[in-house]
Amino acid sequence: MTQYDYDLFVIGAGSGGVRASRTAAAAGARVAIAEDLYLGGTCVNVGCVPKKLYSFAAHFQDAFDDAAGFGWHVETPPVFDWPTLRDNKTSEIKRLNGIYRGMMDSAGVTLHEARASLVDEHTVSLKSADGSTSRVTADKILLATGGWPWVPGFPGNEHVVDSNKVFDLERFPERFLVLGGGYIAVEFASIFNGLGSETHLIYRGDRFLKGFDEEVREFTETEMSRKGVNLHYHANIERIEKVSQEYRVSLTNGETLTVDAVLSATGRRANVAGLGLENLGITLDENGKIPVTERFETCVPSILALGDLTAGPELTPVALAEAMQLVAHHFSDTPPPPLDYDAIPTAVFCHPNIGSVGLTEEEARERYASVRVYRTDFKAMKHSLSASQERTLMKLVVDDASDVVVGAHMVGEEAGEVIQGIAIAVRAGLKKRDFDLTVGIHPTGAEEFVTLRDVSRY
Amino acid sequence: MTQYDYDLFVIGAGSGGVRASRTAAAAGARVAIAEDLYLGGTCVNVGCVPKKLYSFAAHFQDAFDDAAGFGWHVETPPVFDWPTLRDNKTSEIKRLNGIYRGMMDSAGVTLHEARASLVDEHTVSLKSADGSTSRVTADKILLATGGWPWVPGFPGNEHVVDSNKVFDLERFPERFLVLGGGYIAVEFASIFNGLGSETHLIYRGDRFLKGFDEEVREFTETEMSRKGVNLHYHANIERIEKVSQEYRVSLTNGETLTVDAVLSATGRRANVAGLGLENLGITLDENGKIPVTERFETCVPSILALGDLTAGPELTPVALAEAMQLVAHHFSDTPPPPLDYDAIPTAVFCHPNIGSVGLTEEEARERYASVRVYRTDFKAMKHSLSASQERTLMKLVVDDASDVVVGAHMVGEEAGEVIQGIAIAVRAGLKKRDFDLTVGIHPTGAEEFVTLRDVSRY
Repeated sequence: MTQYDYDLFVIGAGSGGVRASRTAAAAGARVAIAEDLYLGGTCVNVGCVPKKLYSFAAHFQDAFDDAAGFGWHVETPPVFDWPTLRDNKTSEIKRLNGIYRGMMDSAGVTLHEARASLVDEHTVSLKSADGSTSRVTADKILLATGGWPWVPGFPGNEHVVDSNKVFDLERFPERFLVLGGGYIAVEFASIFNGLGSETHLIYRGDRFLKGFDEEVREFTETEMSRKGVNLHYHANIERIEKVSQEYRVSLTNGETLTVDAVLSATGRRANVAGLGLENLGITLDENGKIPVTERFETCVPSILALGDLTAGPELTPVALAEAMQLVAHHFSDTPPPPLDYDAIPTAVFCHPNIGSVGLTEEEARERYASVRVYRTDFKAMKHSLSASQERTLMKLVVDDASDVVVGAHMVGEEAGEVIQGIAIAVRAGLKKRDFDLTVGIHPTGAEEFVTLRDVSRY
Repeated sequence: MTQYDYDLFVIGAGSGGVRASRTAAAAGARVAIAEDLYLGGTCVNVGCVPKKLYSFAAHFQDAFDDAAGFGWHVETPPVFDWPTLRDNKTSEIKRLNGIYRGMMDSAGVTLHEARASLVDEHTVSLKSADGSTSRVTADKILLATGGWPWVPGFPGNEHVVDSNKVFDLERFPERFLVLGGGYIAVEFASIFNGLGSETHLIYRGDRFLKGFDEEVREFTETEMSRKGVNLHYHANIERIEKVSQEYRVSLTNGETLTVDAVLSATGRRANVAGLGLENLGITLDENGKIPVTERFETCVPSILALGDLTAGPELTPVALAEAMQLVAHHFSDTPPPPLDYDAIPTAVFCHPNIGSVGLTEEEARERYASVRVYRTDFKAMKHSLSASQERTLMKLVVDDASDVVVGAHMVGEEAGEVIQGIAIAVRAGLKKRDFDLTVGIHPTGAEEFVTLRDVSRY
């Protein structure tokens, strides 16, 4: 392998790329990585981390409201200052960027701050910010450039921000519009609504969060509406006109909304622009993803790919798991066991949060002859003293024949925190009987998951 | 059985008594229940429920402090008003009392609002608040009077409040002292500290929360100290003098503290005073508990007992589980499987919370030849923008030979919510490998439980 500069050259220092580079280096490989923009990738810079920080920020309004019933008197209503949040977020991300830099440094991974593209099956060309170019060779090249927001074409689409830019709006949008029905759309709708914007969500379909459990979708819709998010379904943006500092948004349903910012959260695509795939004859599948083998090899065996560039859930922990599998396949002798893509838990940080693992009720009914559903919805104990009307939903989906819990879903405070442990049980194939035999922790919300005694429906 | 007024007469309408009475009635038994004070028992009136409400109240101060880093400006510091919390709590408990009354009513259980005592093996004497007395007979009598706070004898102990009365203090104690080192003591120390009291915890031992995982105890001690609770170990109260509205508390270590309220949280005893046990020759064991068989029978087979009156963890869900077992044994044909007392999860609502299931590290080292401990402590993401220094601890204790996770422990926000799902996995005997195979939910705190890759110690 010493005929090449490196054993592994990684393009893209996001979750998957960084984990692969560090793990391969730890296994003895000579590794370099190229990144021209976001050290730490989407997750750290324009995804999970800033999104969660903004979600925390948006939750404080609830805390201020709820506190009154518990005896706290707030004389003057708290005032939200957008630049403080935005700039504190930026400082924190710079700190994390530094941590990523340090991790790669101490792992012995060479960082090239440059934009990389494929030249041939063992050669990468690098272009730095100052315009200088160079070439490096490697036995294997890993494509890990992730995804990039996609914005639809309509007159005035130059006025929208995407989910990369929304974190850094110069002014706080008193009126905010989100186009889209996926998890990014509902998360930002909840964030800006919580921070005080008049918030509109525009979605062309029947109901947001397609693919999630139907009851979860309905329940979340009710809760988000109650919190003040204006939902406009069966609608799309026809055009946007900028009038002074405002945007006039004409919808396909005839409505016109005047807002201060428009977020297009209309999906993400594999980030392959300028990557040079065409130089090696690597083509995308019908979903715009790079096809790979179980060993993460593209049609060119020395070129690997993982994470959001490839099929599978676009989630940081999935990219991390794939990175470790990839390194096990190519740089070590003991491959870890395969990922179970059925039981990958997820959270949506809309308000209230959603946590989900395993099959939706609809998927379970397709897969199994008979399904038992256990569900409950209730007002969390905190809200017995607050004025909030927020309710919590919990449900278990059980294969009747085997008694195995094949899905668990929650809408409510800290749903992601609650579902993580449940996910261990569901992935391991535990039965409803195992849930029943577990004693509840009283008083918590989570205890409802082990005290669901009565079948709600078959 | 029709020779008696009832098939089952329950003394005490707490968690265990109410569940037993309703479940037995649903199985067709003729059931009555007697309660002279707290409909719903300790949990609803002077335990879990008001404690958790006060814990919520005490957490708001953290929210106000944390909000600043997220851009929220609070002009004037929020002011806490004790009577609002106390009286809103009382209204909520009255509402719950009504729900309990309704549940028994709709289950067909006759409620006697009277103090009951045993006359003979099938007869109970009832004394109402107005002094009138009556007698009823039953085939079986269930003792379910729970526990009662115990206060040690020292000069001035008439000035202390116990954990029943502390919820209803007339004035908010600007200076608050707790005597005790159990979970009730640390919970109230955190509550009053959070609500703004100068708080002192006095404990005769080395460290509070004996019986919990040693590292959990240490970590909690550090966190509670950092939040401002003053810990006085190796100390006890020698005497209390009331001087005007203040209490001068002299400690055995020579210190004197002047405070506005003293809570004695020095343990609970089986609530057997006036129950008439002596009339039937029922004696207590060395721990002051009523000995019962697996069928919950005392030495007099027609007299049953469960919950805090008997051995076993003093927890609402345990009393509920015992009630259902008891009814299965005596009024139905299919007994549920036995409780696994090893894997009963618990939470302590000190700040930060503790969640625990299974064995402590120390217990595991006694039981198994070799133990692997995986642990992490970190600053939760929220505190990357807040000024809080609070840290979170998570640890897994694994039997090295079998790879089974025999204990899981957490100190941190919402630890009880996080541990509930983990408890399903631990009770079912899942392995560390099952934890490793579960994908994390990013970004959450709970994901650390499935991403602990490196053994911290053997």
